[in-house]
This record gives sequence, structure tokens and C-alpha cells, in this order.
Amino acid sequence: MATTRTEFNGFFPRLLDDVLTELPSFGATSEMTARIKELFTYNVEGGKMNRGMSVVDTVKIVRGESELPEDINTQAMVLGWAVEWLQAFFLVADDIMDESPTRRGQPAWYRRKDVGILAINDSFLIESAIYRLLKKYFRSEPYYVDLLELFHETSYQTELGQMVDLLTAPENDINLDRFSIQKHAYIVEYKTAYYSFYLPVALALLMTGTPADSPTLQVAKDILIPLGVYFQVQDDYLDCYGDPEFIGKIGTDIEDNKCSWLVVQALDRVTPAQRQVLNDNYGRKAPAEHALRVKQLYKDLDIEGVYRAYEDAAIADLQDKIGKVDESAVPRAVFTAFLNKVAKRTK
Amino acid sequence: MATTRTEFNGFFPRLLDDVLTELPSFGATSEMTARIKELFTYNVEGGKMNRGMSVVDTVKIVRGESELPEDINTQAMVLGWAVEWLQAFFLVADDIMDESPTRRGQPAWYRRKDVGILAINDSFLIESAIYRLLKKYFRSEPYYVDLLELFHETSYQTELGQMVDLLTAPENDINLDRFSIQKHAYIVEYKTAYYSFYLPVALALLMTGTPADSPTLQVAKDILIPLGVYFQVQDDYLDCYGDPEFIGKIGTDIEDNKCSWLVVQALDRVTPAQRQVLNDNYGRKAPAEHALRVKQLYKDLDIEGVYRAYEDAAIADLQDKIGKVDESAVPRAVFTAFLNKVAKRTK
Repeated sequence: MATTRTEFNGFFPRLLDDVLTELPSFGATSEMTARIKELFTYNVEGGKMNRGMSVVDTVKIVRGESELPEDINTQAMVLGWAVEWLQAFFLVADDIMDESPTRRGQPAWYRRKDVGILAINDSFLIESAIYRLLKKYFRSEPYYVDLLELFHETSYQTELGQMVDLLTAPENDINLDRFSIQKHAYIVEYKTAYYSFYLPVALALLMTGTPADSPTLQVAKDILIPLGVYFQVQDDYLDCYGDPEFIGKIGTDIEDNKCSWLVVQALDRVTPAQRQVLNDNYGRKAPAEHALRVKQLYKDLDIEGVYRAYEDAAIADLQDKIGKVDESAVPRAVFTAFLNKVAKRTK
Repeated sequence: MATTRTEFNGFFPRLLDDVLTELPSFGATSEMTARIKELFTYNVEGGKMNRGMSVVDTVKIVRGESELPEDINTQAMVLGWAVEWLQAFFLVADDIMDESPTRRGQPAWYRRKDVGILAINDSFLIESAIYRLLKKYFRSEPYYVDLLELFHETSYQTELGQMVDLLTAPENDINLDRFSIQKHAYIVEYKTAYYSFYLPVALALLMTGTPADSPTLQVAKDILIPLGVYFQVQDDYLDCYGDPEFIGKIGTDIEDNKCSWLVVQALDRVTPAQRQVLNDNYGRKAPAEHALRVKQLYKDLDIEGVYRAYEDAAIADLQDKIGKVDESAVPRAVFTAFLNKVAKRTK
């Protein structure tokens, strides 16, 4: 049985407690501990938790068990939450850099009166907690060092993706010359796909005995990175064409000058006159006519049709790759579980 | 022979090159690589490098060699520079949080027009580079995992110290009730002493064969943490009483509302009337009379005499501890080398 949100959430207090109870050995007063408790609770909990839960689900599939033995379940839960902690580290910092007002329906951490620019150091503390948890639960495992290296490498990849994103689409400095299909591909692969898709599965594989230098990890990467890219392209598509009732928000990528898959595809197809339309209208918060003109241009260029073709090809390619997976190394179900959740989603 | 600045500096280009040459394997374009080169060069080079050089010097003392074999020298240099890289990670972020205009005689990284708030993510990239270097040079060493854990733990300690510092003495919110001898002690120990004094020696000891669970590391900590605290107390003292010609700057701790050793000692000794003088005058940038009144109060309380007594006791205590070190585990010269550099310094 797939892990439920309730089950996964139920594990968080224990991990929070692990990090908090050792704080006195770092000289922490009760005031410090209370603040750090609030920091972790506010920022690590409350997400969709798909990334974290996918670690546990992957361990179940690899082991062929619908319920895990207690010790294995504990370790899988720790790795799942470690991914959520890593995401919280990035999101707290991203929100400062993007000046985002809210996150998960509440004020972004840095926007709180009692936080402000301290949020930078707070993001570091969230990152550090990952390594406290790994040490506590995996110190004596032969693959401990592989877990550490995987978190280091994934962090680096994500930071490189974030760097390119920030350089490509800075707020308040609109210049479509910086946008390209290549830049978009780099950003979605490095900023999102590694930590969201490859990391959870790689952790589960390391935990279930796959050696760090096994070709199986490369096989997983060759499927999960394109899958993560496809997921992010969908995100860009749904921002413009999704039903706001379904996706839970009204998309503003055009107004926000985002380096979206849609605009880089459009840029690849425009006439000089159409490009001028984009230059004059993309990234303008108001009035609404600007965004409407961009949407009309997308229609003229049939970007929706371009997306449909991309999606069909992406799914076919992924199915093909999954079909070639050697099941004696890793069950194909690991990947189909992901693909089924992503393919043709509407939210 | 102690490592020279020229020798230590001469090693930097090689390490920079190590990190840059593998960037294409992370999909980096030449533009990305150029930017990361500038990021590391601007922020990691150009410090006093005492922390980094002390790793190499400690390895020499422990091995009893005035010149190290090439492979050992390389590893010691890498660890020394890793400490400098760690410091750069913290300083880039600290400067944003403190709104510092300059660092090492040039504009703080975040103040550059082409950087701004991207500096947050840039600080993460600096941190990540540490683990790339450790992987390259120590992956096959039995103590590799100990190095990783030491960097993790030291980062966490420094972040905890920074958190307390930011909460105790926020800019533009003066409240001496938050200051105390205990808070000051926590900040200097956690924010500075661990990474500046304990880390370099612990790295050198791990590299030269001391097991991570050896009591020798605890002995080193019991000497180097108080030594680091003493060093920081000196810093606070010299900010007020040092010769600006010698220390190279005019101290502004009083004006900047710093939780300095001097003010927490004063607060511990004031009458209610004197406390009112502090409340009315500490942390005011202008006019200069405010700071002069605080200095007069320090005189009335003989804080300079309190400092002299503290210093004498600290040195005696450190000499006593060093005298008890079992030289079959670690040469006392490791610690006397530090103490001699720190004791009674005037800059």
C-alpha cells in the first residue's frame, strides 16, 4: 500500500524531536530550542509531501512489500523527510530572493515580523538539520557516505539551477534575449528535477542495497530527469492553460516574466513582428491587456499544439525507456508509479 | 617552517581550477563557469588566511616536519582552503544580514550591481564547493566521513551562534536587556571559536591519524574553544582600546549596538543610574557624545582593569591546560603556537 499523507505526517514530530532534544548539547537554551522548533515546523511541514512520500513508496516497491518492517520503515521515513527538509532549505531562501509574499497559504518565513533577513541563516539551519538526522539514523550503515554525497551533489545541482534561473529572469529587468530553450531546459533539470525526482529514488535505491556506483542509478537518472523535466513543462503549461479551479491558483507566469516553456517555444517560432509583440507585452504586471496579447500570440503560434506533441513524445519516450529497464536490477514499477502520477495530470 | 602566505595563496588557483573544470559535467556553460570563478575568487581569496594556514602548520607540528611530503602538503592545503571556503560561505551571508558595505577593503559581494540578492544562492554555492574539494582529495581516505561530519557539525555550531547574535543585537532595535555575559559567551564560542580555532586543528588531527572518537580531539577542544573565546574578547577590547593605527580601523562597536564583552561586563557592574546612562547612549550612531559617555562609564567601572584581570587569568588557565597535554597523543606545540599568536596581541 502506498504511504498515506497521514502516515507520513505522523512521523514528523519524532524527527523534529530528534533534532530538538540534542540542541542542549549544542548549548541551546529553551528559548533557542523553541525558536528552532517554530522554524522547522513552519517551513518543513505543510507541503504536498509528494517528494518525501515517494522515497517510502519506492522502498516498498523495490522490496516488494506493501508494509515495511519497522526499522526499514523508520529509515525510509527519515530519508523522505530529509528530502522535505532539503526542499524547505531551498524554499525559505528562494522566497527571499523572489520576494514571494506567501508560501503554502501562509506568509513566507522571511515576511514574519520576528524573522526578516534572519531567514537567510535560518535556511542554513534547516540544511544542517538534514545531516543531524542522517547521522542519527544512518551513521553505521555502509552506504552512509553515499547518502551524504548524494545530498551534497543534489544541493549543488539545485543551486546551479537556481543561479541560472535568477540570472535569466531577474524581477524588474525584462529582456527576452536571455531566454532560450536551452536555458529553460537547464533550469528545470537542475533547479527541480534532480532533487524532486532523482533524489527520492536514488535514496531509496541506496537504502535497499544498490551500490552508489551501480549502473542502476544511471538508469534511474536517465528516466527520472526527463520525467522531472516533463513535469515542470506541464507546470508551465498548466499555469497558462490549466483550470484555475483545478490547479488552485490563477497563473501569472507571463506577468511575472518567468522563463516558461511556453515563451521559449514561442520565441523559437516568432517572426520579427511577433517577437516585438512579446518584447512589448511579456513580464508586465498591468494592465491585463499585455498578458492577453501574449496569450493571443501563443494561440497564433499554436503553442498548445506544440505542447500536445511534446507531451505525447515525452510519454512515449519514457514508456520506451521504462520498458528497457532490467527488472533484475530494479522493478519497472518504481518508474511507472511516477509516470502514472505525472502523465496527463490536470493539476 | 611555518607556511607563508605566498605559499598558501599559491595553492588557491589549483583548487579553484579543480572546482571549475568539473562544472561542464554539471552542464555549465562557459558563462556560468566564468561567473562562478568570479564568485569564488572575489570571496574566498584576500582574507588574512590565518585559519587556513593554521591547518598546514598544525600538520607540520604533529608530524614533526618543517617541510611536508608533497601528497601530505596537498591534502593539508586543501583542508586549509576548505576552512577559508567555509568562512567565505558565512561572510557572504553575514554581510547581507548585517548590511555591511564592505569586506576586506572592497564592496561586499551582495553590494555589487551584478549580484544583489543572488548573493544568498551564491553563498550556498561556496558551501557546496567545500564538499566537491573534500570528495576529490579525500574520498578514499578512511577518515573521509569524519571530515564531512566535522564540517557539518562546525557549520551547525556557527549557524547557531549567528542566530543568537542576530537575535541579541538586531540593528535598529536597541534593548540592552537582551545582553548578558552568558549570551556573549555563547555567541563568541559558537559563531567564531569552533570554526576559527577548533576546526583547523581537528582537521589536522584527523588527517594525521587521530581517530574521530579519540579523547585527543576533546583535549584540543577544551583548549582551543577557550582560546578562541579569549581571542574574541580581545577583539572586543581592541575595538575600544586598541590603537587605530595598529588595528587598521576605528572601532564602532558602541555605535553599532554590538553585544561586546565590554558592555556585558559593564552591565554586570552598573548601578541603576549608570544603567540608565548605557540605555540612553549605547548603540547611537551620532552624535559622538553618546559613545564618549559610554566610554566614560567604562572608565568609571574600570572595565579595562576587568579586562586585564580576565586576560591574565585566561592565559594562565590556557598555559595550565596546555601543560597537562599528554605529548604522546599530540605535541603541546600545536597549542602554544596558537597561544603565542593570540596572547597580548595589540592588533
